[in-house]
Amino acid sequence: MKATLNCLPCIVRQGVDAVTRATDEPELRRAAMSAAFEALSRAQLDETPMALGGAVHEVIAEVTGCPDPWEEVKRESNREGLALYEELTATVAEADDPLLTAAKIAIAGNIMDFGALATFDVEATVQEALAGDFAIGDFEDFRPRLATAKNILYIADNAGEIVFDRVFIEQMGGVAVTIALKSSPFINDAMLADARQVGLDRTARLVTVAPGATSGETFDKAWEQADIIIAKGQGNYEVFSEAEGPVFFLLLAKCPVIAAHIGVNLRDMIFQSQAGRRGDR
Amino acid sequence: MKATLNCLPCIVRQGVDAVTRATDEPELRRAAMSAAFEALSRAQLDETPMALGGAVHEVIAEVTGCPDPWEEVKRESNREGLALYEELTATVAEADDPLLTAAKIAIAGNIMDFGALATFDVEATVQEALAGDFAIGDFEDFRPRLATAKNILYIADNAGEIVFDRVFIEQMGGVAVTIALKSSPFINDAMLADARQVGLDRTARLVTVAPGATSGETFDKAWEQADIIIAKGQGNYEVFSEAEGPVFFLLLAKCPVIAAHIGVNLRDMIFQSQAGRRGDR
Repeated sequence: MKATLNCLPCIVRQGVDAVTRATDEPELRRAAMSAAFEALSRAQLDETPMALGGAVHEVIAEVTGCPDPWEEVKRESNREGLALYEELTATVAEADDPLLTAAKIAIAGNIMDFGALATFDVEATVQEALAGDFAIGDFEDFRPRLATAKNILYIADNAGEIVFDRVFIEQMGGVAVTIALKSSPFINDAMLADARQVGLDRTARLVTVAPGATSGETFDKAWEQADIIIAKGQGNYEVFSEAEGPVFFLLLAKCPVIAAHIGVNLRDMIFQSQAGRRGDR
Repeated sequence: MKATLNCLPCIVRQGVDAVTRATDEPELRRAAMSAAFEALSRAQLDETPMALGGAVHEVIAEVTGCPDPWEEVKRESNREGLALYEELTATVAEADDPLLTAAKIAIAGNIMDFGALATFDVEATVQEALAGDFAIGDFEDFRPRLATAKNILYIADNAGEIVFDRVFIEQMGGVAVTIALKSSPFINDAMLADARQVGLDRTARLVTVAPGATSGETFDKAWEQADIIIAKGQGNYEVFSEAEGPVFFLLLAKCPVIAAHIGVNLRDMIFQSQAGRRGDR
């Protein structure tokens, strides 16, 4: 999905959030934003929003000397997620349809997105997700595929949210799961350290991919081997919406541009196959 | 008032609005936004928001070849305002305190601001203003000053809104009023053509000032001669909040940065003297 002009104010807002967290020095903050504007002036403005945001975050890290303004937020989000882990697994265990319930929980976890939202209520979102249905529901295409799948590539989105992903992944039975994390900091997107903090390294193999990239050494191999690819969250929808492969997009629609691109309302839960998206199923 | 970092996403949003109105060509729109980002990368980011916005609008006009993307919107806003003129003057004529009522109507007209808002309800805002009180009310300092004033400089804000200003100005009795309009296009800010469209040229002398400027040939003389200066709207608050002079700021607080700077809530009605602002009254 290419960025629309309406993505630009939001990308600048994410930059402002980053510089504000990166340094307390007003002059350094302004210098970083000047550099961010310079990067945007040089960029192709119809790249994916994440590629544009990635360029902004890169120069902000350079100018402020703070490689990861969201580091502490990510640690805390993971702790918040872990604090809910026992309750979430119990909810799944007691459910009539544990796999479906775990999928809804994974999607609810997508609310932990500091790129789209300033504040959010995780527990209320979980309750809402459990009570609600998918606006686009290709889950019944996913279920039989999972039964025969050997390898799954799960492209993770945010810190904290990955605890909810873990709950879902633990319902996937004997399949080998590879989780793709960001190779460099981008807002509160999960990296290797986050996956380790929430214990995903004990459940799955971990690989990385750069923010906005569709390709990377370890990532490409996992993509090729995968019988199912799960692309989690808005950012991965942006990046992989035109990709070829057995992809399922799992996300909460939080921004009007993406909601319009998918054809749903804000706050809708999406479980959509790439084949379903293209209408070639 | 200097721009804060939180002004930057909003200034970019205003730029996106401008390019979208200026041209239908996707490539030209992106080229104009690239130029806008380049202008922002070169700007001092602690100028006033209007000065930054002015620089953005200037390059967008250059690149798109559309000098005034808001022209038709301004014409229409003036027509909307004029359609309410008879009703507004009747409301004033029937009021116990016509001057106060006219002042509230002028402030209600400040809702016609496409820089801060995408949509608004003018008539509901007028009713709300008439029923409500000023959050900051230096009107009783203004009343006796007006009784002895010979010259007033009224620095106008938006097209459409200037009809509401006209209703207020017509209650000012025999005083000589000079109205300052923008000398070049800036969002839906009123220019000479707008003042003429709503008949202000028959009530007052017209001068111009550049967007974001505090000074200009005809403007400076009017400023010096004025016994009272009325700075209307958020933009003029930004530009003149540190100026020396007998200034009264009349506005609706529509943006969180300005509301915080004044110390009021969003949607509050402000009638504040410069002396009151400084606490040196």
